[in-house]
Amino acid sequence: MQIGFIGLGSMGAAIATNLVKSGHDVHVFNRSPARAEPLRKAGATVAASPAQAAHSADVVFTMVADDAALASVTFGEAGIAAGLKPGALHISMSTIGVATAQDLTARHREAGFGFVSATVFGRPDAAAARKLFIMAAGADEHLKIAVPLLEQLGQSVGIVGADPSQANLVKLIGNFMLSVIIETLGEACGVAGKAGIDPMHLVELLTSTSFNAPPYKIYGALIASQRFQPAGFSLPLGQKDNRLMLAAADALGVPLPLASLVHDRFLAVRSRGIGAEHDWSAVALCALAEAGMEKQV
Amino acid sequence: MQIGFIGLGSMGAAIATNLVKSGHDVHVFNRSPARAEPLRKAGATVAASPAQAAHSADVVFTMVADDAALASVTFGEAGIAAGLKPGALHISMSTIGVATAQDLTARHREAGFGFVSATVFGRPDAAAARKLFIMAAGADEHLKIAVPLLEQLGQSVGIVGADPSQANLVKLIGNFMLSVIIETLGEACGVAGKAGIDPMHLVELLTSTSFNAPPYKIYGALIASQRFQPAGFSLPLGQKDNRLMLAAADALGVPLPLASLVHDRFLAVRSRGIGAEHDWSAVALCALAEAGMEKQV
Amino acid sequence: MQIGFIGLGSMGAAIATNLVKSGHDVHVFNRSPARAEPLRKAGATVAASPAQAAHSADVVFTMVADDAALASVTFGEAGIAAGLKPGALHISMSTIGVATAQDLTARHREAGFGFVSATVFGRPDAAAARKLFIMAAGADEHLKIAVPLLEQLGQSVGIVGADPSQANLVKLIGNFMLSVIIETLGEACGVAGKAGIDPMHLVELLTSTSFNAPPYKIYGALIASQRFQPAGFSLPLGQKDNRLMLAAADALGVPLPLASLVHDRFLAVRSRGIGAEHDWSAVALCALAEAGMEKQV
Amino acid sequence: MQIGFIGLGSMGAAIATNLVKSGHDVHVFNRSPARAEPLRKAGATVAASPAQAAHSADVVFTMVADDAALASVTFGEAGIAAGLKPGALHISMSTIGVATAQDLTARHREAGFGFVSATVFGRPDAAAARKLFIMAAGADEHLKIAVPLLEQLGQSVGIVGADPSQANLVKLIGNFMLSVIIETLGEACGVAGKAGIDPMHLVELLTSTSFNAPPYKIYGALIASQRFQPAGFSLPLGQKDNRLMLAAADALGVPLPLASLVHDRFLAVRSRGIGAEHDWSAVALCALAEAGMEKQV
Repeated sequence: MQIGFIGLGSMGAAIATNLVKSGHDVHVFNRSPARAEPLRKAGATVAASPAQAAHSADVVFTMVADDAALASVTFGEAGIAAGLKPGALHISMSTIGVATAQDLTARHREAGFGFVSATVFGRPDAAAARKLFIMAAGADEHLKIAVPLLEQLGQSVGIVGADPSQANLVKLIGNFMLSVIIETLGEACGVAGKAGIDPMHLVELLTSTSFNAPPYKIYGALIASQRFQPAGFSLPLGQKDNRLMLAAADALGVPLPLASLVHDRFLAVRSRGIGAEHDWSAVALCALAEAGMEKQV
Repeated sequence: MQIGFIGLGSMGAAIATNLVKSGHDVHVFNRSPARAEPLRKAGATVAASPAQAAHSADVVFTMVADDAALASVTFGEAGIAAGLKPGALHISMSTIGVATAQDLTARHREAGFGFVSATVFGRPDAAAARKLFIMAAGADEHLKIAVPLLEQLGQSVGIVGADPSQANLVKLIGNFMLSVIIETLGEACGVAGKAGIDPMHLVELLTSTSFNAPPYKIYGALIASQRFQPAGFSLPLGQKDNRLMLAAADALGVPLPLASLVHDRFLAVRSRGIGAEHDWSAVALCALAEAGMEKQV
Repeated sequence: MQIGFIGLGSMGAAIATNLVKSGHDVHVFNRSPARAEPLRKAGATVAASPAQAAHSADVVFTMVADDAALASVTFGEAGIAAGLKPGALHISMSTIGVATAQDLTARHREAGFGFVSATVFGRPDAAAARKLFIMAAGADEHLKIAVPLLEQLGQSVGIVGADPSQANLVKLIGNFMLSVIIETLGEACGVAGKAGIDPMHLVELLTSTSFNAPPYKIYGALIASQRFQPAGFSLPLGQKDNRLMLAAADALGVPLPLASLVHDRFLAVRSRGIGAEHDWSAVALCALAEAGMEKQV
Repeated sequence: MQIGFIGLGSMGAAIATNLVKSGHDVHVFNRSPARAEPLRKAGATVAASPAQAAHSADVVFTMVADDAALASVTFGEAGIAAGLKPGALHISMSTIGVATAQDLTARHREAGFGFVSATVFGRPDAAAARKLFIMAAGADEHLKIAVPLLEQLGQSVGIVGADPSQANLVKLIGNFMLSVIIETLGEACGVAGKAGIDPMHLVELLTSTSFNAPPYKIYGALIASQRFQPAGFSLPLGQKDNRLMLAAADALGVPLPLASLVHDRFLAVRSRGIGAEHDWSAVALCALAEAGMEKQV
């Protein structure tokens, strides 16, 4: 199948590489061309623009940083909408806002393109190992094309619904739930530490019970040791997703007090100079500091 | 070993039965004597008072409803302190407050008794199947006696520290973390439902990713279906533990905004007439109602 | 002085009428022309567009519903920017967002127009009686023209600073503080009522002490009696201002937990079907309901 | 009238002095006797115990630090209950918990004493100037005696209801409302400061509008200047009252999210080493720090 792929960050590059390995004819584009080189070596064709990558493709994937980048590579000058053939399918894998996804859906429908949102749970190493959990949403006729491709990229593909933006919402909900786990662990480690229980020991004890899910283990270790560098998922990206979740909930008329609390934590931790080089689990520093348990460095 | 066992609720009865099955000479007491009958049939001796159950025991277990019940069976008339022989060990398995545990520790030390807090994670069926996760804390000399016994009662025994109250704190932290999961699921199901995603489908999707821990599955199903009866763990008990957590954190000087939020949820849901017959996951009704997604019944 | 005036809602009409009465040559415009008739009778000239109202004016006032309306009457087709003469001054009195005000400032500077934000505290009757409290911000050279005019419109004119958006921020802070008073009164009336103290009596008692400011008296009476109709300031407008406050604080990097709480209250109360016909003090219904003290109607 | 007066802190001493000046025969007691000397000079009789001060008194006032102190001077050894003659009246002016007031009411009724709670709004200088706002609650027959006396002590006496604890609740609600004003001002000054508006200027602007009540002026000046010493009302006392408010609301089944937030602020600010020498308005430091606007000292 001829495939266009726009966005070769660490996630995008891993996914595009897997598409090449699966035997597809992949035309890639990345804003900074250096990141396309490894793909060229792996067998992809490097395009000069999103439009060129989309040209004569059956399916174009996008995996870009945020809503603005997606709008730009889609509808900007030499964007994929300018190159895509009628009836072709756009699969958006980025973590973007619900309103942006709804807007894309409407504009693509009008232009005669298919559209599927396929959001991913997992980090770059999981992407490389085809271990992603993928959430897909779109019209049946589009899912029929998208799902077999997506199954080559992850360990499971969940069908969320017929409205592409629903897959974006589920992704935002997932990150919302992770952010609450981070805050929970910050508070738990703060109170335990104040009582003379080593936070790392607390995390080991609790994750040996029914709190044995990866987020508790991974973030528990980071928070208990207060080691927030290097960033696995950077704080500003986490903050962006928190804002997207609140915006989606606001539009739906749903209060999310937990997301509001985490929103305030993001702002407070950034006022302390914590930023892009830190993992988003650094929001737990607020709770640790309020407990008087912040490590002095 | 001669063992006293006070408190034959569903958890206590399952644990006491296992002690009998393991070959110990178990003397049981329960306030309402009817609940002692199955234990008698299983081979236990039924005592007329906590003091009698404790008399000539090497170890006395207590598994009672709350701090007041523990104070009563321990220091009340014909309490275990009145029957226990010097040097014997009291193992408290109840979910009680940190201050109560500290008080017990001091009074037992003064009276020449040993004291271990051994709190449990798991429901009655896990207790019956010796699948509990147990958190134990106390002086080394007392843990040396307690741990081998506790290992007969669960799948793991974590040693929290030398201060018995630390095991109580870890239990409260565990329930605090569960309560936050409940609130999280309430908010997540509310926003998903409002966007046209069946909450049960959301839970299935998310628990097939890294949110695959039992609390997300169990509470997710209850909350998505809004089925809060029968109570697995009743709402007033959950509310009691939330209050104990806040009291412990207050004494330690640690703010827990998440616990404060859940505290307010407990009060709000009770104002709606939800109570003792409901599972504590019914606190999620607040978030569901605020989303306009509460089921009309 | 020749003055343009755009926006003849209840506030705008009262202010424009006072400008006419003060002897200015006032050219008014309102989207629905019927509302301009009373002004014509009072002596104003009715213009066919914002541009026409601005044409040859020394100063153009705008008092419109929201950021979008202001953008439209300013930069839209036949907007004031299309009619204003170089060096003329735009005085914006609307409650708009800080970012919108910053954008207007930059565009007007570029186009050679002066710009002052002059936000108002007070209701239409206060506007009619020239009893408004006005907050003005802008460059000195523009304030020199604006302040004498504004002094004809209210009982005091506070100079906030040189950046027009600062007057918008102060207005949003004022409404934020009012919204917190509303929530406070909801919680206070809920807990008092539950204890058998008539909420109206509570309000009378407290506002006879140092809580003797108008907001406590006015909103206290509405909330204690749970009479939220007719709307003095409608709930959706209050919600809009809450969102503008949170957006401004987010851009500045400042968490406002109280505004986040009120944000969630707005969403929750709207899920209950409370809306445009209700006064924004109806957000207190959330606290009253959580106390089990909501009046059944 | 013969009057006993227990508790000669700065409030109690001012009130007792006014009772002497009004011509009553006042028998005073204070734990540390040095504080009784000025009263002796003013014409009071100094008693050796609460019981002695109560002996043959028609009315005994208490104005002590907290619930424990009140219990001690009332029911402790040589407490007023041991000295009071049948039918005499106890007027409690302390800020105590609702449950303690209910307990006192029941025990006094049983013992044949009258009981009125008469809580006060105002600082020592207001007490000295007979400018207190007083809230009284109790049975009519007791209020008939208490109110004429109280009217000699303040500028107004509000009758809350027939249950003495209601006056205590109103006092706690008043302090709750003040604590919310403090948090509001902290957030407002933080966001204004970050936008380049001098917080003191913000306070002046806003208190010249309808936020012209004393709490906004007094706390606004302290918070804008971040001057929290000396303490007008010390932080631990404010924290105590916040806890009493939350306990009363919890017992009534009423969530108070604002009080929960302030509760967490108290704990957080104390973790920073702020304590007894600071005014309770120092809780605003949390919001100021989260805005990145805390003054470095």
